[in-house]
Amino acid sequence: ADAPARPARLGLCAACHGETGMAQVPGAPNLAGQRLDYLREALKQYRDGRRAAPLMRAAIGPVGDADLDALARWYSAQTPQAPRP
Amino acid sequence: ADAPARPARLGLCAACHGETGMAQVPGAPNLAGQRLDYLREALKQYRDGRRAAPLMRAAIGPVGDADLDALARWYSAQTPQAPRP
Repeated sequence: ADAPARPARLGLCAACHGETGMAQVPGAPNLAGQRLDYLREALKQYRDGRRAAPLMRAAIGPVGDADLDALARWYSAQTPQAPRP
Repeated sequence: ADAPARPARLGLCAACHGETGMAQVPGAPNLAGQRLDYLREALKQYRDGRRAAPLMRAAIGPVGDADLDALARWYSAQTPQAPRP
């Protein structure tokens, strides 16, 4: 499949998850190569509170569905990198 | 770091997440190479209901803390594989 275009809202996520989905801060998960269905479902769960994570809920609350889908596609399409030493 | 020993309870997780952390079924996330702190926290959240996921809560409810830690270490130490075509 073609690589997805860089999402307009990527910067919001990249602060913690990195532009290519490798976590930048403690507590944040890597997202690179994660399954698309799982990423979509996790975003829904953060939004509706089934995952009680205030930071994520606040971060994605204002982001529209189409933008969230673009972000899930972007991260799922990335290749995981080796951890930095 | 040395690779962790294969956890005694790995089979429980592997049915959905694979022995090396590549998901086997729709809806399950890849775990290979995921950050250890994130895996530990996610397991706690499943157990105490902050993540409302009945399957995961049922699966890990009977598993002791030491076994959960061994499982988190195992999956974090795996190298992500390319998706199967």
